[in-house]
Amino acid sequence: MNRKRLFGEEWIFDGFLPGEKKTFLSGFAVKRLLYQGKSAFQTFHVFDTAGFGRIFFLDGLVQLSTAHEHVYHEMLVHPALLSHPHARRVLIVGGGDGGALREVLKHPVKEAVLVDIDKKVIEVSKKYLSSVNAGAFSSKRSTVIIGDGIEFVSKNKNAFDCIILDSNDPDGVMAQKLFQERFFRSVRAALKKGGIFAAQTGYVSDGFGKKARSSMKKVFGKYALHVAFVPHFPRDLHSFPVASVSVDPVKIPEHILQKRYEVRRLSTSYYSPALHGASRVLAKKP
Amino acid sequence: MNRKRLFGEEWIFDGFLPGEKKTFLSGFAVKRLLYQGKSAFQTFHVFDTAGFGRIFFLDGLVQLSTAHEHVYHEMLVHPALLSHPHARRVLIVGGGDGGALREVLKHPVKEAVLVDIDKKVIEVSKKYLSSVNAGAFSSKRSTVIIGDGIEFVSKNKNAFDCIILDSNDPDGVMAQKLFQERFFRSVRAALKKGGIFAAQTGYVSDGFGKKARSSMKKVFGKYALHVAFVPHFPRDLHSFPVASVSVDPVKIPEHILQKRYEVRRLSTSYYSPALHGASRVLAKKP
Repeated sequence: MNRKRLFGEEWIFDGFLPGEKKTFLSGFAVKRLLYQGKSAFQTFHVFDTAGFGRIFFLDGLVQLSTAHEHVYHEMLVHPALLSHPHARRVLIVGGGDGGALREVLKHPVKEAVLVDIDKKVIEVSKKYLSSVNAGAFSSKRSTVIIGDGIEFVSKNKNAFDCIILDSNDPDGVMAQKLFQERFFRSVRAALKKGGIFAAQTGYVSDGFGKKARSSMKKVFGKYALHVAFVPHFPRDLHSFPVASVSVDPVKIPEHILQKRYEVRRLSTSYYSPALHGASRVLAKKP
Repeated sequence: MNRKRLFGEEWIFDGFLPGEKKTFLSGFAVKRLLYQGKSAFQTFHVFDTAGFGRIFFLDGLVQLSTAHEHVYHEMLVHPALLSHPHARRVLIVGGGDGGALREVLKHPVKEAVLVDIDKKVIEVSKKYLSSVNAGAFSSKRSTVIIGDGIEFVSKNKNAFDCIILDSNDPDGVMAQKLFQERFFRSVRAALKKGGIFAAQTGYVSDGFGKKARSSMKKVFGKYALHVAFVPHFPRDLHSFPVASVSVDPVKIPEHILQKRYEVRRLSTSYYSPALHGASRVLAKKP
């Protein structure tokens, strides 16, 4: 981990993706290291910080802070689930910290399946990030599968109302495959009629995310892009695309979203049906 | 300046306000130092950076980057000027870099008066930040006054259609006075009937800004808050309040803003009439 003392404080610095041009550095004031370890897939660090609660790192890259993960998880899940009139079965690919699962379970789904390749993410999250998963793993409606999301999706046809891709950025061979056209076609086949796909595609200005979103548009046809500022990802706005073969997410009026929000008795801290539309309005010349 | 070598790059780090709790550190990869100096009021640094163009520091604090200042200046100026049907005389308090003046002059104003206390800000900006002021200082419609904004405002009653406060954050005694109720009352008196006041009040979550905005609301009565992510201010969304005694900025429909935008032939990179409304939608529990 990149841990240094500067200006009278101890800082941990977010890492860089392989090949990333180093132009911006962000540091978080450390209170203490709570956990470090590794799995067959990645290294793990959990820190208590002075301003961001706990920060969870994989391979030296910030995954979430407990202070601000609600922005990320609400914007990843609710635009998709509220665009569906009655999602019964939802799949989360990745998301081993349990935050997306927690948000999905706020909806009246029958089953939420989470497939993560690395069981250590779930173990570490249960132990050190319990405010994130908040009991979601022990819900009767949750099914947790340790395995390859690509393989799982390819074996399940016409099976889910919503699929949510909550992966880390494509800094390894595996995550890269999750952002490619081939996988998106597999996701399309795994969705039921009227199904909706949502993902996180990193900073809105990053090239890999633009490419991934352009593939999503091509594969699904109907598409919307939401952006939000997530303070532990401080380099730019974060991007949350939503795509579907049959449902045009842009055409659902706010009063329908509001109705669904109320009927489902959702409780959110960042997301609102008003912000749903506002978060789609991008800079004039992005 | 806080300049250090880390991870194979040279970085300049943004400073901290006096008394600020150090929780987050942001660094920008340096290409070269172009200028350093000082005036009776503050120290100056201009750097060329790898990812943000030129960054201008006062007293070690980031003021702007040439890559992203358009977001800041457009969101500071256009919500106010488009909320006014025909602003003729506009006052900018501070803004010695000329970016706000440049945006004001895109509107058909008769006169734009800029009052900055530190003539060195204007000199350094003309020399090193010419893309920011972009000839605005030499416009026949511009009047530049070197002097105390508080004094100037107090001497001008019923004189301006819009007043824009483009000051640095209240890290000194002087800037503090610009964010207080007493000054806002003085601004109110300096505005003509139908006049509009706009300001930057720092990060949306910061205490001083909240206090300043609450004073603005109290003094003016009608009020709106716009937020935007400005990448060289990466700790949170930046806040741009608009206030008026007689014009409720929230009640101007988008089609009126759009009409004004077109009639005035505005050209913007970030701001749009659609973003005008969207930028007022805040997190559900801010």
